[in-house]
Amino acid sequence: MKEFFKVMTLDAVLEFRDRFKIKTVEQVSLDQSHKRILAKPLVSDRDLPDFSRATMDGYAVRASSTFGASSGSPAWLTIVGSVAMGEKPTFDVGPGEAARIATGGMLPQGADSVVMIEITETVDKHTVEVYKSVAPGQFVIERGEDFEQGKTILMAGQEIRPQEAGLMAAFGVDSVTVYAKPRVGIISTGDEVVPVSEEPPPGHIRDINSYTLGGLVEGAGGIPRTYGIVKDNEKELYNRCEKALLENDMLLISGGSSVGVRDFTTAVLAALPDSEILVHGIAISPGKPTLLARVGEKAVWGLPGHVVSAMIVFDVVVKPFVHAIAGRKPFCGDRFTIPAVLTRNVPSGQGREDYVRVKLIEKDHDILAEPVLGKSGTINSMVLADGLIRIPMNTEGLEKGCRVKVRLM
Amino acid sequence: MKEFFKVMTLDAVLEFRDRFKIKTVEQVSLDQSHKRILAKPLVSDRDLPDFSRATMDGYAVRASSTFGASSGSPAWLTIVGSVAMGEKPTFDVGPGEAARIATGGMLPQGADSVVMIEITETVDKHTVEVYKSVAPGQFVIERGEDFEQGKTILMAGQEIRPQEAGLMAAFGVDSVTVYAKPRVGIISTGDEVVPVSEEPPPGHIRDINSYTLGGLVEGAGGIPRTYGIVKDNEKELYNRCEKALLENDMLLISGGSSVGVRDFTTAVLAALPDSEILVHGIAISPGKPTLLARVGEKAVWGLPGHVVSAMIVFDVVVKPFVHAIAGRKPFCGDRFTIPAVLTRNVPSGQGREDYVRVKLIEKDHDILAEPVLGKSGTINSMVLADGLIRIPMNTEGLEKGCRVKVRLM
Repeated sequence: MKEFFKVMTLDAVLEFRDRFKIKTVEQVSLDQSHKRILAKPLVSDRDLPDFSRATMDGYAVRASSTFGASSGSPAWLTIVGSVAMGEKPTFDVGPGEAARIATGGMLPQGADSVVMIEITETVDKHTVEVYKSVAPGQFVIERGEDFEQGKTILMAGQEIRPQEAGLMAAFGVDSVTVYAKPRVGIISTGDEVVPVSEEPPPGHIRDINSYTLGGLVEGAGGIPRTYGIVKDNEKELYNRCEKALLENDMLLISGGSSVGVRDFTTAVLAALPDSEILVHGIAISPGKPTLLARVGEKAVWGLPGHVVSAMIVFDVVVKPFVHAIAGRKPFCGDRFTIPAVLTRNVPSGQGREDYVRVKLIEKDHDILAEPVLGKSGTINSMVLADGLIRIPMNTEGLEKGCRVKVRLM
Repeated sequence: MKEFFKVMTLDAVLEFRDRFKIKTVEQVSLDQSHKRILAKPLVSDRDLPDFSRATMDGYAVRASSTFGASSGSPAWLTIVGSVAMGEKPTFDVGPGEAARIATGGMLPQGADSVVMIEITETVDKHTVEVYKSVAPGQFVIERGEDFEQGKTILMAGQEIRPQEAGLMAAFGVDSVTVYAKPRVGIISTGDEVVPVSEEPPPGHIRDINSYTLGGLVEGAGGIPRTYGIVKDNEKELYNRCEKALLENDMLLISGGSSVGVRDFTTAVLAALPDSEILVHGIAISPGKPTLLARVGEKAVWGLPGHVVSAMIVFDVVVKPFVHAIAGRKPFCGDRFTIPAVLTRNVPSGQGREDYVRVKLIEKDHDILAEPVLGKSGTINSMVLADGLIRIPMNTEGLEKGCRVKVRLM
């Protein structure tokens, strides 16, 4: 028996991420920054808010003026003015005094809290009754409570969610420095593969991988670009790789990684100028016959032709590399895995990590992970699946009832 | 004490989704369909695959020819041919025979399984030794195993993930009928609000909500369009609403929903032709003073001015309406909540649902949900948060250690 693959562990493969550089940066307007990756930290240039604000409609008071108030024995306060929105009050609030204020209004000097309008009754235009005592600071956001001046409030590598965009708006950042999205070329190979628009002759199948991989690249924050199908022709694959490498930051070749065709893809990659085969097989299932080469400064992947294997290898192995060149820090904004309870025994092989498709079922306060049965070539199994679980290397599998972590796909 | 809001439960509010129609449909090419919502079911027009395929490199055999084989006593099989990729084999495989085949190749007549190359040794060009028995069907995807002809394989309302795109590719669908994305107009109101590009004078703040709501609309599958800031001027708000309603399918007005300004927004909405105020307050916190009106066939929301309240109301209340007019079925592709363990007691008010921001911390096989403390006006609390937990109505809160479901934000 021959040894076909010098397999490497997944962790060892992931260390190669350091070999590939982060993309350059670009400026986008704040309203175009959704889900982009911040390339510069944001430091607060002021206190936020820079004045103490009411968070309720009511009366700005000194809390001590209300101490002991109840519905039986309300506090009577003298109304000394009304805070206009967006204006700095010209009067102070002393003991036994109150000023009308709306949500977002600036607290007058002397006031330390807001009595919500629901617990007051206006007696006449100069007097208000308060039925409950309030604590100092109640219904007020103090100056600097959100952020103090000079603090790093966002880090490079963070994904910009709506709240991060709002924070930048608060600091007046209307143009954001983000990392450029990595462009990822996709080539399908195989004599049996025909374009989606063609009717496959007997023994042929349509090109599925260009579409699944395209969607996965988009989901990982990259820009996919497809280069069609290359029949098993070494010269043509070389030329197509050369062109795609000129126009992209990473390249995915699917279908050329099983024995035979794989040697052929390896030969093409080895022939490209300044190239080095880094990985010749990974100890995962599905996905063992995966290739990784460095060509110049770019990563080129040989992925399995099976759609399911290719998708799982993308999710588990390739995506972290896309994130790396996208500048995305793994510690920020990552999706969490979902803890779930396995519904049946899942055996696994020795000497590799297994990735198993599961469907999630909500049940009371738990989520059940039901393995999706199906051979690795059926795309239906991916459509039925919500995510993947990992069976670590050197275990014989996982038992029904054990807790697993599910990564959504 | 006055009753300011005729509050409605969240469930009652969500029932109004039926009042608003799904958007029209449009055609997009398959490679532009990522995350769009399918508007027509997909029915299989053939078996998939439409021939039995090898899923390993090796030899196509009758499984019975290998029964009893071991390394000590291998089965000797006669090689009768080689399956060319993308071609229909012209020979059969009988008992004691084998044919070379690569992954994806079409199984010859008579063969029912594939012996993987790793458990074979070629003796000469006519003979191969097999060291292990294989089961019928091993390393083969049978015709129709993925999908049988005539089955509904995707439903209208499903989100198109990479696997659904791949499935459509397999069936030759290169142009997809999807629902048009809902266009959502966003207006900020308030005398104290200034554009992001301006330096706020004392007592003013920058317009944050246009950006947070814009990002949330995008995340919910809509197309946001901002209409700037309207000062507290009834005529101007009326005109801006009229324009935004012409150009959009839904409208969000933020900042005009606290008492006073709220009456003013209500007056404008009531004055628009064919309008009806449906909701005058919701029994949730934050977010109680939320307005919903129907103007013609469109939903118009009055959201709280506080950034955090507005974001939470969007996530909990508005997003389901965006999904409804986007044609997105709640049963498909929805994000799962993450089960987690609460790290401290969280009190809550009676007669309302409370939504509490939490940070998630992975710990062994569990995830901890740590409430983010902070007043509702601090956007920092949203930046620190990973998601929200819900405290049901008529409970006094949740206890440390209890299991909660976290919706990611």
